[in-house]
Amino acid sequence: MLDWISTAIRKDPSLQGGLRPLEILLYPGMWALIFHRIAHPLFLLKIPFIPRLLSQIARILTGIEIHPGAKIGKRFFIDHGYGVVIGETTEIGDDVMIYHDVTLGALGWWKANGKAKRHPTIGDKVVIGAGAKILGPVRVGDGAKIGVAAVVIRDVPAKAVVAGSLGKLLKKKTSRKK
Amino acid sequence: MLDWISTAIRKDPSLQGGLRPLEILLYPGMWALIFHRIAHPLFLLKIPFIPRLLSQIARILTGIEIHPGAKIGKRFFIDHGYGVVIGETTEIGDDVMIYHDVTLGALGWWKANGKAKRHPTIGDKVVIGAGAKILGPVRVGDGAKIGVAAVVIRDVPAKAVVAGSLGKLLKKKTSRKK
Amino acid sequence: MLDWISTAIRKDPSLQGGLRPLEILLYPGMWALIFHRIAHPLFLLKIPFIPRLLSQIARILTGIEIHPGAKIGKRFFIDHGYGVVIGETTEIGDDVMIYHDVTLGALGWWKANGKAKRHPTIGDKVVIGAGAKILGPVRVGDGAKIGVAAVVIRDVPAKAVVAGSLGKLLKKKTSRKK
Repeated sequence: MLDWISTAIRKDPSLQGGLRPLEILLYPGMWALIFHRIAHPLFLLKIPFIPRLLSQIARILTGIEIHPGAKIGKRFFIDHGYGVVIGETTEIGDDVMIYHDVTLGALGWWKANGKAKRHPTIGDKVVIGAGAKILGPVRVGDGAKIGVAAVVIRDVPAKAVVAGSLGKLLKKKTSRKK
Repeated sequence: MLDWISTAIRKDPSLQGGLRPLEILLYPGMWALIFHRIAHPLFLLKIPFIPRLLSQIARILTGIEIHPGAKIGKRFFIDHGYGVVIGETTEIGDDVMIYHDVTLGALGWWKANGKAKRHPTIGDKVVIGAGAKILGPVRVGDGAKIGVAAVVIRDVPAKAVVAGSLGKLLKKKTSRKK
Repeated sequence: MLDWISTAIRKDPSLQGGLRPLEILLYPGMWALIFHRIAHPLFLLKIPFIPRLLSQIARILTGIEIHPGAKIGKRFFIDHGYGVVIGETTEIGDDVMIYHDVTLGALGWWKANGKAKRHPTIGDKVVIGAGAKILGPVRVGDGAKIGVAAVVIRDVPAKAVVAGSLGKLLKKKTSRKK
Protein backbone atom coordinates (compact mmCIF):
# COMPACT_ATOMS: atom_id res chain seq x y z
CA MET A 1 0.00 0.00 0.00
CA LEU A 2 2.92 2.37 0.58
CA ASP A 3 3.60 3.07 -3.06
CA TRP A 4 -0.16 3.53 -3.46
CA ILE A 5 -0.18 6.26 -0.82
CA SER A 6 2.86 8.05 -2.17
CA THR A 7 1.39 8.02 -5.67
CA ALA A 8 -1.89 9.50 -4.51
CA ILE A 9 -0.23 12.23 -2.50
CA ARG A 10 1.97 13.15 -5.43
CA LYS A 11 -0.84 13.30 -7.96
CA ASP A 12 -4.09 14.43 -6.35
CA PRO A 13 -4.41 18.22 -6.58
CA SER A 14 -6.68 18.35 -3.52
CA LEU A 15 -3.93 16.76 -1.37
CA GLN A 16 -1.31 19.45 -1.99
CA GLY A 17 0.11 21.62 0.75
CA GLY A 18 0.70 21.60 4.52
CA LEU A 19 -1.10 18.84 6.40
CA ARG A 20 -3.43 18.05 3.49
CA PRO A 21 -1.59 14.84 2.53
CA LEU A 22 -2.90 13.41 5.84
CA GLU A 23 -6.35 13.51 4.31
CA ILE A 24 -5.39 10.43 2.36
CA LEU A 25 -6.49 8.53 5.48
CA LEU A 26 -10.03 9.61 4.69
CA TYR A 27 -10.04 8.28 1.14
CA PRO A 28 -12.70 5.61 0.78
CA GLY A 29 -10.83 4.08 -2.14
CA MET A 30 -7.92 3.30 0.15
CA TRP A 31 -10.08 1.54 2.71
CA ALA A 32 -11.92 -0.47 0.09
CA LEU A 33 -8.58 -1.62 -1.28
CA ILE A 34 -7.21 -2.55 2.17
CA PHE A 35 -10.29 -4.72 2.79
CA HIS A 36 -9.88 -6.29 -0.62
CA ARG A 37 -6.19 -7.06 -0.05
CA ILE A 38 -7.32 -9.14 2.97
CA ALA A 39 -10.43 -10.68 1.40
CA HIS A 40 -8.85 -11.77 -1.89
CA PRO A 41 -6.26 -14.25 -0.47
CA LEU A 42 -8.96 -15.76 1.78
CA PHE A 43 -11.13 -16.15 -1.31
CA LEU A 44 -8.30 -17.91 -3.16
CA LEU A 45 -7.97 -20.30 -0.19
CA LYS A 46 -11.65 -21.09 -0.73
CA ILE A 47 -12.53 -19.98 2.78
CA PRO A 48 -16.31 -19.60 2.75
CA PHE A 49 -18.38 -16.54 3.62
CA ILE A 50 -15.67 -14.45 5.35
CA PRO A 51 -14.25 -12.87 2.17
CA ARG A 52 -17.68 -11.76 1.01
CA LEU A 53 -18.48 -10.50 4.51
CA LEU A 54 -15.34 -8.34 4.47
CA SER A 55 -16.33 -7.07 1.05
CA GLN A 56 -19.77 -6.09 2.31
CA ILE A 57 -18.39 -4.33 5.38
CA ALA A 58 -16.14 -2.34 3.08
CA ARG A 59 -19.16 -1.58 0.93
CA ILE A 60 -21.15 -0.12 3.82
CA LEU A 61 -18.18 2.02 4.88
CA THR A 62 -17.11 3.20 1.45
CA GLY A 63 -19.90 2.70 -1.07
CA ILE A 64 -17.44 0.63 -3.12
CA GLU A 65 -18.29 -3.00 -3.83
CA ILE A 66 -15.38 -5.21 -4.90
CA HIS A 67 -16.08 -8.93 -5.15
CA PRO A 68 -13.31 -10.78 -3.27
CA GLY A 69 -12.61 -12.82 -6.40
CA ALA A 70 -11.45 -9.80 -8.44
CA LYS A 71 -7.72 -9.65 -9.29
CA ILE A 72 -6.36 -6.14 -8.85
CA GLY A 73 -2.88 -4.87 -9.75
CA LYS A 74 -0.61 -2.36 -8.06
CA ARG A 75 -1.45 1.26 -7.24
CA PHE A 76 -5.13 0.87 -8.15
CA PHE A 77 -6.82 4.15 -7.34
CA ILE A 78 -10.55 4.75 -6.90
CA ASP A 79 -11.49 8.42 -6.55
CA HIS A 80 -14.66 9.29 -4.57
CA GLY A 81 -15.92 5.78 -5.16
CA TYR A 82 -19.66 5.74 -4.39
CA GLY A 83 -21.43 3.22 -6.54
CA VAL A 84 -18.36 1.42 -7.84
CA VAL A 85 -19.11 -2.26 -8.55
CA ILE A 86 -16.33 -4.70 -9.51
CA GLY A 87 -17.40 -8.25 -10.35
CA GLU A 88 -15.96 -11.61 -9.37
CA THR A 89 -13.97 -12.46 -12.51
CA THR A 90 -12.65 -8.95 -13.19
CA GLU A 91 -8.89 -8.56 -13.72
CA ILE A 92 -7.24 -5.15 -13.36
CA GLY A 93 -3.63 -4.28 -14.30
CA ASP A 94 -1.22 -1.88 -12.60
CA ASP A 95 -1.65 1.88 -12.19
CA VAL A 96 -5.31 1.85 -13.12
CA MET A 97 -7.45 4.76 -11.98
CA ILE A 98 -11.22 4.79 -11.83
CA TYR A 99 -13.73 7.32 -10.62
CA HIS A 100 -16.98 6.93 -8.70
CA ASP A 101 -19.93 5.06 -10.07
CA VAL A 102 -17.87 2.88 -12.43
CA THR A 103 -19.16 -0.64 -13.05
CA LEU A 104 -16.90 -3.49 -14.17
CA GLY A 105 -19.74 -5.93 -14.50
CA ALA A 106 -21.40 -8.81 -16.30
CA LEU A 107 -23.94 -8.76 -19.10
CA GLY A 108 -26.67 -10.26 -16.96
CA TRP A 109 -27.51 -13.52 -15.29
CA TRP A 110 -29.39 -14.77 -18.29
CA LYS A 111 -26.16 -14.79 -20.30
CA ALA A 112 -23.98 -16.45 -17.63
CA ASN A 113 -22.43 -19.66 -18.75
CA GLY A 114 -21.13 -21.85 -15.95
CA LYS A 115 -17.62 -21.03 -14.81
CA ALA A 116 -16.78 -18.82 -17.79
CA LYS A 117 -15.29 -15.36 -17.23
CA ARG A 118 -18.13 -12.88 -16.98
CA HIS A 119 -16.34 -9.62 -16.22
CA PRO A 120 -13.80 -7.32 -17.96
CA THR A 121 -10.03 -7.46 -18.12
CA ILE A 122 -8.47 -4.02 -17.72
CA GLY A 123 -4.89 -3.37 -18.88
CA ASP A 124 -2.20 -1.26 -17.18
CA LYS A 125 -2.50 2.53 -16.84
CA VAL A 126 -6.16 2.62 -17.89
CA VAL A 127 -8.28 5.57 -16.69
CA ILE A 128 -12.05 5.11 -16.41
CA GLY A 129 -14.28 8.17 -15.95
CA ALA A 130 -17.16 8.59 -13.52
CA GLY A 131 -20.25 6.60 -14.33
CA ALA A 132 -18.65 4.51 -17.08
CA LYS A 133 -19.94 0.95 -17.35
CA ILE A 134 -17.79 -1.82 -18.84
CA LEU A 135 -19.73 -5.04 -19.17
CA GLY A 136 -18.95 -8.61 -20.09
CA PRO A 137 -15.64 -10.44 -20.62
CA VAL A 138 -14.16 -7.67 -22.77
CA ARG A 139 -10.56 -6.51 -22.81
CA VAL A 140 -9.53 -2.85 -22.34
CA GLY A 141 -5.96 -2.41 -23.61
CA ASP A 142 -3.08 -0.74 -21.76
CA GLY A 143 -3.27 3.02 -21.48
CA ALA A 144 -6.84 3.32 -22.79
CA LYS A 145 -9.04 6.15 -21.52
CA ILE A 146 -12.75 5.49 -21.03
CA GLY A 147 -14.71 8.74 -20.88
CA VAL A 148 -17.25 9.83 -18.32
CA ALA A 149 -20.51 7.84 -18.51
CA ALA A 150 -19.35 5.76 -21.49
CA VAL A 151 -20.84 2.29 -21.90
CA VAL A 152 -18.40 -0.36 -23.21
CA ILE A 153 -19.40 -3.87 -24.28
CA ARG A 154 -16.66 -4.58 -26.85
CA ASP A 155 -12.87 -4.79 -26.68
CA VAL A 156 -10.98 -1.49 -26.57
CA PRO A 157 -7.48 -1.32 -28.15
CA ALA A 158 -4.47 -0.12 -26.20
CA LYS A 159 -4.21 3.68 -25.86
CA ALA A 160 -7.65 4.17 -27.42
CA VAL A 161 -10.11 6.76 -26.15
CA VAL A 162 -13.81 5.92 -25.75
CA ALA A 163 -16.20 8.84 -25.33
CA GLY A 164 -19.70 8.76 -23.88
CA SER A 165 -22.29 10.99 -25.52
CA LEU A 166 -22.53 14.58 -24.37
CA GLY A 167 -25.72 16.31 -23.39
CA LYS A 168 -27.27 18.37 -26.18
CA LEU A 169 -28.00 22.04 -25.76
CA LEU A 170 -31.61 22.40 -26.90
CA LYS A 171 -32.40 25.49 -28.93
CA LYS A 172 -33.74 28.19 -26.71
CA LYS A 173 -37.34 28.93 -27.50
CA THR A 174 -37.71 32.46 -28.75
CA SER A 175 -40.40 34.38 -26.93
CA ARG A 176 -43.75 32.96 -27.92
CA LYS A 177 -46.92 34.98 -28.28
CA LYS A 178 -49.54 34.14 -25.69
CA MET B 1 -39.20 -14.02 1.13
CA LEU B 2 -38.48 -17.75 0.88
CA ASP B 3 -39.22 -18.06 -2.82
CA TRP B 4 -37.11 -14.94 -3.28
CA ILE B 5 -34.12 -16.60 -1.65
CA SER B 6 -34.49 -19.85 -3.54
CA THR B 7 -34.75 -17.98 -6.84
CA ALA B 8 -31.61 -15.98 -6.16
CA ILE B 9 -29.59 -19.04 -5.15
CA ARG B 10 -30.70 -20.90 -8.24
CA LYS B 11 -29.90 -18.10 -10.65
CA ASP B 12 -26.94 -16.02 -9.44
CA PRO B 13 -23.69 -17.44 -10.86
CA SER B 14 -21.65 -16.05 -7.96
CA LEU B 15 -23.71 -18.07 -5.46
CA GLN B 16 -22.95 -21.49 -6.93
CA GLY B 17 -21.10 -24.20 -5.05
CA GLY B 18 -20.34 -25.31 -1.47
CA LEU B 19 -21.25 -22.78 1.19
CA ARG B 20 -21.58 -19.91 -1.28
CA PRO B 21 -25.41 -19.88 -1.17
CA LEU B 22 -25.02 -18.65 2.42
CA GLU B 23 -23.68 -15.41 0.99
CA ILE B 24 -27.24 -14.51 0.11
CA LEU B 25 -27.42 -13.20 3.69
CA LEU B 26 -25.02 -10.47 2.64
CA TYR B 27 -27.09 -9.25 -0.30
CA PRO B 28 -28.10 -5.64 0.26
CA GLY B 29 -31.09 -6.08 -2.05
CA MET B 30 -32.52 -8.65 0.34
CA TRP B 31 -32.22 -6.38 3.34
CA ALA B 32 -33.71 -3.41 1.53
CA LEU B 33 -36.66 -5.57 0.58
CA ILE B 34 -37.16 -6.90 4.12
CA PHE B 35 -37.28 -3.35 5.45
CA HIS B 36 -39.73 -2.41 2.71
CA ARG B 37 -42.00 -5.36 3.45
CA ILE B 38 -42.35 -3.94 6.98
CA ALA B 39 -42.53 -0.26 6.03
CA HIS B 40 -45.10 -0.56 3.24
CA PRO B 41 -48.04 -1.94 5.33
CA LEU B 42 -47.38 0.73 8.00
CA PHE B 43 -47.47 3.33 5.22
CA LEU B 44 -50.82 1.99 4.00
CA LEU B 45 -52.16 2.27 7.57
CA LYS B 46 -51.14 5.95 7.36
CA ILE B 47 -48.83 5.60 10.36
CA PRO B 48 -46.67 8.72 10.26
CA PHE B 49 -42.89 8.99 10.15
CA ILE B 50 -42.02 5.36 11.07
CA PRO B 51 -42.28 3.97 7.52
CA ARG B 52 -40.00 6.64 6.12
CA LEU B 53 -37.61 6.16 9.05
CA LEU B 54 -37.37 2.43 8.26
CA SER B 55 -36.76 3.29 4.63
CA GLN B 56 -33.92 5.65 5.57
CA ILE B 57 -32.30 3.10 7.90
CA ALA B 58 -32.38 0.61 5.03
CA ARG B 59 -30.85 3.28 2.80
CA ILE B 60 -27.88 3.85 5.10
CA LEU B 61 -27.28 0.09 5.38
CA THR B 62 -27.77 -0.80 1.73
CA GLY B 63 -27.49 2.29 -0.46
CA ILE B 64 -30.98 1.45 -1.77
CA GLU B 65 -33.77 3.99 -1.27
CA ILE B 66 -37.30 2.64 -1.61
CA HIS B 67 -40.11 4.99 -0.65
CA PRO B 68 -42.49 3.10 1.69
CA GLY B 69 -45.39 3.94 -0.63
CA ALA B 70 -44.00 1.90 -3.55
CA LYS B 71 -45.93 -1.27 -4.47
CA ILE B 72 -43.57 -4.15 -5.19
CA GLY B 73 -44.45 -7.62 -6.50
CA LYS B 74 -43.02 -11.03 -5.71
CA ARG B 75 -39.39 -12.08 -6.10
CA PHE B 76 -38.16 -8.55 -6.79
CA PHE B 77 -34.41 -8.73 -7.04
CA ILE B 78 -31.95 -5.82 -6.78
CA ASP B 79 -28.37 -6.75 -7.61
CA HIS B 80 -25.57 -4.71 -5.96
CA GLY B 81 -27.98 -1.89 -5.37
CA TYR B 82 -26.00 1.24 -4.59
CA GLY B 83 -27.80 4.31 -5.79
CA VAL B 84 -31.16 2.68 -6.49
CA VAL B 85 -34.04 5.15 -5.96
CA ILE B 86 -37.68 4.01 -6.14
CA GLY B 87 -40.32 6.72 -5.78
CA GLU B 88 -43.55 6.84 -3.80
CA THR B 89 -46.10 6.01 -6.51
CA THR B 90 -44.01 3.37 -8.31
CA GLU B 91 -45.66 0.01 -9.00
CA ILE B 92 -43.56 -3.06 -9.76
CA GLY B 93 -44.85 -6.44 -10.98
CA ASP B 94 -43.58 -9.96 -10.17
CA ASP B 95 -40.13 -11.37 -10.98
CA VAL B 96 -38.63 -8.02 -11.80
CA MET B 97 -34.86 -7.67 -11.62
CA ILE B 98 -32.95 -4.42 -11.43
CA TYR B 99 -29.29 -3.58 -11.07
CA HIS B 100 -27.50 -0.90 -9.08
CA ASP B 101 -27.98 2.77 -9.73
CA VAL B 102 -31.45 2.37 -11.30
CA THR B 103 -33.90 5.22 -10.75
CA LEU B 104 -37.67 4.75 -10.92
CA GLY B 105 -38.41 8.40 -10.40
CA ALA B 106 -40.47 11.47 -11.16
CA LEU B 107 -39.95 14.14 -13.79
CA GLY B 108 -39.29 16.83 -11.22
CA TRP B 109 -41.14 18.79 -8.61
CA TRP B 110 -42.09 21.52 -11.01
CA LYS B 111 -44.22 19.05 -12.95
CA ALA B 112 -45.93 17.43 -9.94
CA ASN B 113 -49.67 17.74 -9.97
CA GLY B 114 -51.34 17.14 -6.64
CA LYS B 115 -52.05 13.50 -5.89
CA ALA B 116 -51.42 12.25 -9.42
CA LYS B 117 -49.13 9.29 -10.03
CA ARG B 118 -45.63 10.61 -10.54
CA HIS B 119 -43.57 7.41 -10.91
CA PRO B 120 -43.41 4.45 -13.32
CA THR B 121 -45.40 1.24 -13.49
CA ILE B 122 -43.20 -1.77 -14.23
CA GLY B 123 -44.72 -5.00 -15.58
CA ASP B 124 -43.83 -8.61 -14.70
CA LYS B 125 -40.44 -10.13 -15.58
CA VAL B 126 -38.88 -6.81 -16.55
CA VAL B 127 -35.08 -6.51 -16.33
CA ILE B 128 -33.52 -3.06 -15.86
CA GLY B 129 -29.78 -2.62 -16.39
CA ALA B 130 -27.37 -0.70 -14.19
CA GLY B 131 -27.72 3.06 -14.26
CA ALA B 132 -31.00 3.08 -16.22
CA LYS B 133 -33.37 5.89 -15.32
CA ILE B 134 -37.13 5.55 -15.86
CA LEU B 135 -38.94 8.77 -15.11
CA GLY B 136 -42.53 9.88 -14.87
CA PRO B 137 -45.81 7.93 -14.81
CA VAL B 138 -44.83 5.72 -17.76
CA ARG B 139 -45.64 2.04 -18.22
CA VAL B 140 -42.99 -0.60 -18.97
CA GLY B 141 -44.70 -3.71 -20.37
CA ASP B 142 -44.22 -7.31 -19.19
CA GLY B 143 -40.93 -8.91 -20.12
CA ALA B 144 -39.30 -5.72 -21.40
CA LYS B 145 -35.56 -5.30 -21.06
CA ILE B 146 -34.14 -1.84 -20.36
CA GLY B 147 -30.44 -1.67 -21.22
CA VAL B 148 -27.62 -0.37 -19.11
CA ALA B 149 -27.69 3.41 -18.61
CA ALA B 150 -30.82 3.85 -20.80
CA VAL B 151 -33.08 6.82 -20.05
CA VAL B 152 -36.82 6.14 -20.47
CA ILE B 153 -39.53 8.80 -20.34
CA ARG B 154 -42.16 7.18 -22.59
CA ASP B 155 -44.14 3.94 -22.42
CA VAL B 156 -42.31 0.75 -23.39
CA PRO B 157 -44.31 -2.10 -24.98
CA ALA B 158 -44.24 -5.64 -23.58
CA LYS B 159 -41.13 -7.66 -24.47
CA ALA B 160 -39.48 -4.61 -26.05
CA VAL B 161 -35.78 -3.86 -25.66
CA VAL B 162 -34.55 -0.34 -24.96
CA ALA B 163 -30.85 0.33 -25.45
CA GLY B 164 -28.81 3.18 -24.02
CA SER B 165 -26.15 4.69 -26.24
CA LEU B 166 -22.74 3.04 -26.30
CA GLY B 167 -19.47 4.87 -25.88
CA LYS B 168 -17.79 5.74 -29.17
CA LEU B 169 -14.26 4.63 -29.94
CA LEU B 170 -12.52 7.79 -31.09
CA LYS B 171 -10.15 7.38 -33.99
CA LYS B 172 -6.64 6.84 -32.76
CA LYS B 173 -4.43 9.71 -33.72
CA THR B 174 -1.71 8.51 -36.02
CA SER B 175 1.74 9.53 -34.84
CA ARG B 176 2.08 13.25 -35.25
CA LYS B 177 5.26 15.06 -36.19
CA LYS B 178 6.67 17.11 -33.39
CA MET C 1 -31.33 26.43 7.30
CA LEU C 2 -34.82 27.57 8.24
CA ASP C 3 -35.73 28.97 4.86
CA TRP C 4 -34.30 25.78 3.38
CA ILE C 5 -36.69 23.66 5.42
CA SER C 6 -39.74 25.79 4.69
CA THR C 7 -38.96 25.73 0.97
CA ALA C 8 -38.65 21.96 0.92
CA ILE C 9 -41.88 21.43 2.83
CA ARG C 10 -43.73 23.77 0.53
CA LYS C 11 -42.47 22.21 -2.68
CA ASP C 12 -41.86 18.46 -2.26
CA PRO C 13 -45.02 16.53 -3.19
CA SER C 14 -44.08 13.62 -0.92
CA LEU C 15 -44.05 15.91 2.12
CA GLN C 16 -47.66 17.07 1.81
CA GLY C 17 -50.29 16.37 4.45
CA GLY C 18 -50.60 15.62 8.17
CA LEU C 19 -47.33 14.78 9.91
CA ARG C 20 -45.49 14.18 6.65
CA PRO C 21 -43.56 17.47 6.80
CA LEU C 22 -41.72 15.95 9.80
CA GLU C 23 -40.09 13.56 7.37
CA ILE C 24 -37.85 16.40 6.31
CA LEU C 25 -35.70 15.34 9.27
CA LEU C 26 -34.91 12.17 7.37
CA TYR C 27 -33.68 13.92 4.23
CA PRO C 28 -30.05 13.05 3.61
CA GLY C 29 -29.59 16.24 1.61
CA MET C 30 -30.36 18.27 4.71
CA TRP C 31 -27.80 16.46 6.82
CA ALA C 32 -25.11 16.70 4.18
CA LEU C 33 -25.71 20.44 4.01
CA ILE C 34 -25.60 20.88 7.79
CA PHE C 35 -22.23 19.14 7.91
CA HIS C 36 -21.00 21.29 5.04
CA ARG C 37 -22.14 24.52 6.73
CA ILE C 38 -19.82 23.55 9.61
CA ALA C 39 -16.95 22.18 7.53
CA HIS C 40 -16.70 25.05 5.04
CA PRO C 41 -15.83 27.88 7.51
CA LEU C 42 -13.22 25.61 9.15
CA PHE C 43 -11.78 24.98 5.68
CA LEU C 44 -11.59 28.74 5.02
CA LEU C 45 -9.71 29.14 8.31
CA LYS C 46 -7.23 26.61 6.92
CA ILE C 47 -7.81 24.25 9.84
CA PRO C 48 -6.31 20.96 8.69
CA PHE C 49 -7.97 17.57 8.46
CA ILE C 50 -11.14 18.30 10.48
CA PRO C 51 -13.17 19.78 7.58
CA ARG C 52 -12.45 16.80 5.35
CA LEU C 53 -13.20 14.42 8.25
CA LEU C 54 -16.62 16.06 8.71
CA SER C 55 -17.21 15.75 4.98
CA GLN C 56 -16.40 12.04 5.08
CA ILE C 57 -18.65 11.39 8.08
CA ALA C 58 -21.46 13.10 6.17
CA ARG C 59 -20.62 10.93 3.17
CA ILE C 60 -20.97 7.68 5.13
CA LEU C 61 -24.30 8.83 6.60
CA THR C 62 -25.78 10.29 3.44
CA GLY C 63 -23.95 9.02 0.36
CA ILE C 64 -23.32 12.66 -0.55
CA GLU C 65 -19.71 13.85 -0.85
CA ILE C 66 -19.19 17.61 -0.70
CA HIS C 67 -15.61 18.81 -0.51
CA PRO C 68 -15.37 21.34 2.34
CA GLY C 69 -13.90 23.87 -0.08
CA ALA C 70 -17.06 24.10 -2.21
CA LYS C 71 -18.98 27.40 -2.03
CA ILE C 72 -22.74 26.78 -1.81
CA GLY C 73 -25.52 29.37 -1.94
CA LYS C 74 -28.84 29.57 -0.12
CA ARG C 75 -31.60 26.95 -0.19
CA PHE C 76 -29.45 24.37 -1.98
CA PHE C 77 -31.51 21.20 -2.22
CA ILE C 78 -30.23 17.69 -2.93
CA ASP C 79 -32.98 15.13 -3.49
CA HIS C 80 -32.21 11.47 -2.61
CA GLY C 81 -28.54 12.20 -2.93
CA TYR C 82 -26.69 8.89 -3.21
CA GLY C 83 -23.60 9.25 -5.32
CA VAL C 84 -23.50 13.05 -5.40
CA VAL C 85 -19.92 14.34 -5.67
CA ILE C 86 -19.13 18.06 -5.42
CA GLY C 87 -15.48 19.06 -5.91
CA GLU C 88 -13.27 21.49 -4.04
CA THR C 89 -13.45 24.54 -6.30
CA THR C 90 -17.15 24.24 -7.17
CA GLU C 91 -19.31 27.35 -6.73
CA ILE C 92 -23.10 27.05 -6.50
CA GLY C 93 -25.59 29.94 -6.55
CA ASP C 94 -28.89 30.31 -4.67
CA ASP C 95 -31.97 28.09 -5.02
CA VAL C 96 -30.16 25.36 -6.91
CA MET C 97 -31.68 21.89 -6.89
CA ILE C 98 -29.87 18.70 -7.79
CA TYR C 99 -30.86 15.07 -7.78
CA HIS C 100 -28.97 11.94 -6.77
CA ASP C 101 -25.88 10.80 -8.56
CA VAL C 102 -24.94 14.26 -9.86
CA THR C 103 -21.23 15.00 -10.22
CA LEU C 104 -19.83 18.52 -10.19
CA GLY C 105 -16.31 17.40 -10.85
CA ALA C 106 -12.97 17.92 -12.53
CA LEU C 107 -11.74 16.71 -15.89
CA GLY C 108 -9.13 14.44 -14.36
CA TRP C 109 -5.89 14.68 -12.48
CA TRP C 110 -3.84 14.69 -15.61
CA LYS C 111 -5.37 18.02 -16.62
CA ALA C 112 -5.04 19.70 -13.22
CA ASN C 113 -2.95 22.82 -13.31
CA GLY C 114 -1.72 23.96 -9.92
CA LYS C 115 -4.16 26.15 -8.03
CA ALA C 116 -6.48 26.80 -10.99
CA LYS C 117 -10.22 26.28 -10.64
CA ARG C 118 -10.98 22.70 -11.60
CA HIS C 119 -14.74 22.44 -10.95
CA PRO C 120 -17.94 24.07 -12.28
CA THR C 121 -19.65 27.31 -11.39
CA ILE C 122 -23.43 26.89 -11.15
CA GLY C 123 -25.72 29.93 -11.38
CA ASP C 124 -28.89 30.66 -9.39
CA LYS C 125 -32.05 28.57 -9.79
CA VAL C 126 -30.35 25.84 -11.79
CA VAL C 127 -31.91 22.35 -11.72
CA ILE C 128 -29.67 19.33 -12.41
CA GLY C 129 -31.27 15.95 -13.11
CA ALA C 130 -30.27 12.58 -11.67
CA GLY C 131 -26.99 11.19 -12.95
CA ALA C 132 -25.92 14.36 -14.76
CA LYS C 133 -22.19 15.00 -14.77
CA ILE C 134 -20.79 18.52 -15.12
CA LEU C 135 -17.03 18.49 -15.42
CA GLY C 136 -14.29 21.07 -15.50
CA PRO C 137 -14.29 24.83 -14.78
CA VAL C 138 -17.39 25.49 -16.88
CA ARG C 139 -20.17 27.94 -16.12
CA VAL C 140 -23.86 26.98 -16.02
CA GLY C 141 -25.99 30.12 -16.32
CA ASP C 142 -28.87 31.18 -14.06
CA GLY C 143 -32.06 29.20 -14.46
CA ALA C 144 -30.57 26.53 -16.73
CA LYS C 145 -31.96 23.00 -16.59
CA ILE C 146 -29.60 20.07 -17.05
CA GLY C 147 -31.49 16.90 -17.99
CA VAL C 148 -31.22 13.48 -16.44
CA ALA C 149 -27.91 11.74 -17.18
CA ALA C 150 -26.63 14.62 -19.34
CA VAL C 151 -22.86 15.11 -19.56
CA VAL C 152 -21.72 18.74 -19.69
CA ILE C 153 -18.14 19.87 -20.37
CA ARG C 154 -18.82 23.29 -21.93
CA ASP C 155 -20.48 26.47 -20.71
CA VAL C 156 -24.29 26.50 -20.64
CA PRO C 157 -26.11 29.83 -21.20
CA ALA C 158 -28.68 31.16 -18.73
CA LYS C 159 -32.12 29.52 -18.98
CA ALA C 160 -30.86 26.95 -21.49
CA VAL C 161 -31.92 23.31 -21.38
CA VAL C 162 -29.40 20.50 -21.88
CA ALA C 163 -30.79 17.05 -22.62
CA GLY C 164 -29.04 13.73 -22.22
CA SER C 165 -29.68 11.08 -24.84
CA LEU C 166 -32.73 8.87 -24.42
CA GLY C 167 -32.70 5.11 -24.66
CA LYS C 168 -33.68 3.79 -28.08
CA LEU C 169 -36.53 1.35 -28.50
CA LEU C 170 -35.08 -1.43 -30.63
CA LYS C 171 -37.37 -2.83 -33.30
CA LYS C 172 -39.16 -5.88 -32.01
CA LYS C 173 -38.10 -8.96 -33.88
CA THR C 174 -41.02 -10.45 -35.74
CA SER C 175 -41.45 -14.16 -35.10
CA ARG C 176 -38.64 -15.99 -36.82
CA LYS C 177 -38.90 -19.42 -38.43
CA LYS C 178 -36.95 -22.09 -36.62
